[in-house]
Amino acid sequence: MYRTHNCGELRTANIGETVTLAGWVQYIREKGAMTWIVLRDRYGFTQLMFEEGKTPQDVLDTIKGVGREWVLQTTGKVIERFSKNMELPTGEIEVLADKVVVLNKSAVPPFTIEEETDGGDELRMKYRYLDLRRPTLKRNLELRYKVNRSARNYLDTLGFLDIETPFLIRSTPEGARDFIVPSRMNENQFYALPQSPQTFKQLLMVSGYDRYYQIVKCFRDEDLRADRQPEFSQIDCEMCFVEQEDILQTFEGLFKHIFNDVKGIQMTEAFPRMTFDDAMWHYGNDKPDIRFEMKIQNLKAKNQVHCEALNGVDFKVTNEAESILAIAVPGASEYTRKQTDELTEWVKRPQIGMTGLLFIRCNADGTFKSSVDKFFSEDKLREIAAFSGAQVGDMIFILAGAEARTRKATSELRLEMGNRLGLRNPDVYKPLWVIDFPLFEHDEDENRWVARHHPFTAPKPEQIATMINNDPKIAAGVAFYDHPYNDIKANAYDIVLNGTEIGGGSIRIFQRDLQEKMFAALGMSEEEAKEKFGFLLGAFEYGAPPHGGIAFGFDRLCALLGGQETIRDFIAFPKNNAGRDVMLDAPSAVDDKQLDELKLILKK
Amino acid sequence: MYRTHNCGELRTANIGETVTLAGWVQYIREKGAMTWIVLRDRYGFTQLMFEEGKTPQDVLDTIKGVGREWVLQTTGKVIERFSKNMELPTGEIEVLADKVVVLNKSAVPPFTIEEETDGGDELRMKYRYLDLRRPTLKRNLELRYKVNRSARNYLDTLGFLDIETPFLIRSTPEGARDFIVPSRMNENQFYALPQSPQTFKQLLMVSGYDRYYQIVKCFRDEDLRADRQPEFSQIDCEMCFVEQEDILQTFEGLFKHIFNDVKGIQMTEAFPRMTFDDAMWHYGNDKPDIRFEMKIQNLKAKNQVHCEALNGVDFKVTNEAESILAIAVPGASEYTRKQTDELTEWVKRPQIGMTGLLFIRCNADGTFKSSVDKFFSEDKLREIAAFSGAQVGDMIFILAGAEARTRKATSELRLEMGNRLGLRNPDVYKPLWVIDFPLFEHDEDENRWVARHHPFTAPKPEQIATMINNDPKIAAGVAFYDHPYNDIKANAYDIVLNGTEIGGGSIRIFQRDLQEKMFAALGMSEEEAKEKFGFLLGAFEYGAPPHGGIAFGFDRLCALLGGQETIRDFIAFPKNNAGRDVMLDAPSAVDDKQLDELKLILKK
Repeated sequence: MYRTHNCGELRTANIGETVTLAGWVQYIREKGAMTWIVLRDRYGFTQLMFEEGKTPQDVLDTIKGVGREWVLQTTGKVIERFSKNMELPTGEIEVLADKVVVLNKSAVPPFTIEEETDGGDELRMKYRYLDLRRPTLKRNLELRYKVNRSARNYLDTLGFLDIETPFLIRSTPEGARDFIVPSRMNENQFYALPQSPQTFKQLLMVSGYDRYYQIVKCFRDEDLRADRQPEFSQIDCEMCFVEQEDILQTFEGLFKHIFNDVKGIQMTEAFPRMTFDDAMWHYGNDKPDIRFEMKIQNLKAKNQVHCEALNGVDFKVTNEAESILAIAVPGASEYTRKQTDELTEWVKRPQIGMTGLLFIRCNADGTFKSSVDKFFSEDKLREIAAFSGAQVGDMIFILAGAEARTRKATSELRLEMGNRLGLRNPDVYKPLWVIDFPLFEHDEDENRWVARHHPFTAPKPEQIATMINNDPKIAAGVAFYDHPYNDIKANAYDIVLNGTEIGGGSIRIFQRDLQEKMFAALGMSEEEAKEKFGFLLGAFEYGAPPHGGIAFGFDRLCALLGGQETIRDFIAFPKNNAGRDVMLDAPSAVDDKQLDELKLILKK
Repeated sequence: MYRTHNCGELRTANIGETVTLAGWVQYIREKGAMTWIVLRDRYGFTQLMFEEGKTPQDVLDTIKGVGREWVLQTTGKVIERFSKNMELPTGEIEVLADKVVVLNKSAVPPFTIEEETDGGDELRMKYRYLDLRRPTLKRNLELRYKVNRSARNYLDTLGFLDIETPFLIRSTPEGARDFIVPSRMNENQFYALPQSPQTFKQLLMVSGYDRYYQIVKCFRDEDLRADRQPEFSQIDCEMCFVEQEDILQTFEGLFKHIFNDVKGIQMTEAFPRMTFDDAMWHYGNDKPDIRFEMKIQNLKAKNQVHCEALNGVDFKVTNEAESILAIAVPGASEYTRKQTDELTEWVKRPQIGMTGLLFIRCNADGTFKSSVDKFFSEDKLREIAAFSGAQVGDMIFILAGAEARTRKATSELRLEMGNRLGLRNPDVYKPLWVIDFPLFEHDEDENRWVARHHPFTAPKPEQIATMINNDPKIAAGVAFYDHPYNDIKANAYDIVLNGTEIGGGSIRIFQRDLQEKMFAALGMSEEEAKEKFGFLLGAFEYGAPPHGGIAFGFDRLCALLGGQETIRDFIAFPKNNAGRDVMLDAPSAVDDKQLDELKLILKK
């Protein structure tokens, strides 16, 4: 060992001991005859002290050339520090060094290695090994490790088995794009990297392993939106002989366990549950941030008027809009014209895509004033305010237009107002189960059904008949939402934290005929289904048990627990938005020899 | 939940309780008015009992159609069993069923799902999900999980951090062949799958993470010898500020911890250590099975006579052979002519490649008799026997020929005799450290040096000068073993268990100039080194600490702990010797659309 102690452990109790430390130079300070060097390692910082006269001359000579990030080994006596630094655990002592060995030198780092750095994103990615020295990244990776360990401990205790599933599997283009891997031994054939271990964990249930988990890498070759990674990690779980309730209970427990272990937060109450339909109705999306209220008020939705006040008003906008949705924003009644103009511009941005913003001031004196006074009497405004549950001092913002776009826009506006009002505190954690997801989603481009979760999710038992007895085809002239498939719900659930989905799962199909019907409903021919998923259909022939599971986005969970928004800083070696590892300079060209062996030719 | 109890937990204490179980039909037996069904799940077996008159008629009707591997849910009362089966933990009770639900039917499995099966290898691979139901596979995967957990617990306690490293990295053809992954977003460029996280774990040390581990998948696109997998798992570890001794101590501890946890074996003594040179000298290979002695006797090695008795003998074979190696086999002096002939044929097989086998009988009466009596007097034989440490009753087997081939053959013969004499008991565990490996190996084809471990392994400090001060080029007319590089040793070590290498590692180079020298010694140009490993050389510029590590073959370790030889049965979904997943039928052809997007053309 190059050390007797690490840089985080010496205390006043060690005073008088001779110790050897090793670490990196964080900081050097000279004053008169004195020099101090702060040595850093994973565990902390310890100050070394040198003094002309006291310290051997060769040591003084050695430290003269030393710079930041040099690696030193030092031996000396622990002494009481003259000016104590009570913010550092080791701040009451220092080491009077009488031996120093330079283990390695360092060039001057391209950015500062401190809590906050002056390095830009690309530079930090290129020198990731230096960025990883920064305390903030170190805390993130340590937190990630803690979450990993906490999850394992909980699942271990409940009898879950960690079983590794393969990485070189079969490509089944469906949903996201696969990364594929050419096989040299099987000419012109390819493996695929798994998008998730979904079918394997189901097979393990068929094999009777009962409770499975894995913290595992998954791969998706998608165009990278901000903060997506081509490889990402998942806490992947499956159980058999369970119903939805068992899974919700079990993994609510996992969540509480992790929060307690990692954040010291005891979540004693049961997590609230909300149906998908309610989430859409009240929050405009399937992952509501319930740290604050400000629910969407459905004045009119899908051409159905819910707020009577809209009737008998000669206003084209509200009469013709498919949906009219509102939020009542507390304390906003005194917004200036400038503020309302700015918000109007905000909803008109292409990402939001609305044509305008109506508003009603609920004045302190009990009067109402709106941007549509020409069409709405004050009584009407009062009625709308009452319908919306608005209080004196609120401003009601109203969006009108086509259902889907308006609902999304209102949802975005709600979150934006939440941000502006400081209602989305990252230190407040409000988990939520969203349940009863639709089984199918309508693909507009192809006018067919796609699986909302995945093709292995089971319809609710009472709706199996609806699925089996109806042709999936959407007849000409029939709106997709009038097709019976549109109403079929699944025992599928997401766990949502502070407006972010961090996990989701479902009860699976375990009957061969139902699975075949499902593939057919998704437009897969019998041959195609057999070619892609024959092994699963085969497995369902031999006594598949009822089962279900869940998967958590591990990177995202860690980022949320770390109180940060970007997952990249919770991954040791992430890729940039072009899918590149800037440090390795990967991907890269490969040798012709490699391509020849794989029988591949590049199309330029 | 579909059950109140699992199939392994009911005991006499539960008698009288009404319980619900779910599981697979293992076995059905009828006798007169009685029917018994044994229900199986991961946790065990429980017998259900049905009796005409007692059991409701609808239940009797239901079970009439039931077959093996059907999935049932049953409710009934726990009763005392009439004829107890004390071999089963649940064998003192049975469940008098009064409700049965068929959760799923099963076709007749293609092979028996029992401890021993009648299924062939390919059939079992195709129906892996059924093979995994067999108790032996289940025990294997449970053991694997236990080893995983035990390793993590130990490393967690010592402050190691599990840090995930990337799977989509840069191809650096060096050593084994990479699997490569075409990038769609980076045209004509490829990622590679990691053969190990070697450089990443070293970077983590440069970043100051101090103690790292990971149980991680690695990939090698090699022609598959028996019992190799293209994807395999590794317990991968690295530490900084350590010397070899620290690593040996730490991971000997890991080993002992796992043995205690998983096998209940307390290994109290320090593991023996043997230098690579000694291992080759005494055992003929670098992974000696030390469960038994029967060491190789070096009568003559590399043309140097060690056993004086060989001098002054007019026998061409021994005079001309580069090496003459012997083993004294206990109790074999009375081998018949047939037995010695058979062994002679054995050493002549192409895998062994010797031209003949000499032997000396050490008879019970103290006399000696050999296959070379024509050339060796009895005194000479006695001398050889004494040199070889042979006892009365031993047979000395002697092989003569070129050093490398003869040593390998003698090593194989020793293991073969160990097997025949029952000296290689799989329930006896004899771990061993092999240390002081050579830094370089000679590549005959290209007459150059290759790294024995990998290019990041450091020479022993006292031999750095030898490396730096000598041109790696092997001058014309110079034998490679006369080149100074041949004698350079590394602080590299393997852990060997019962003749199998299950882990290995080294102290790493951490100085940029030495690493560059190393790449040059391996024939890499400066540009090439920079292109492939620029990030590592770069990292070494910024204060790299001394570090070292080790990696364990996780699949192999589990197989050894399970007392079995093949790793395949310790992997949930393995590939066959052609690298195929027979169940998935992977690899497979992919859509033209996928190839187009990746700008790839297949060469037929």
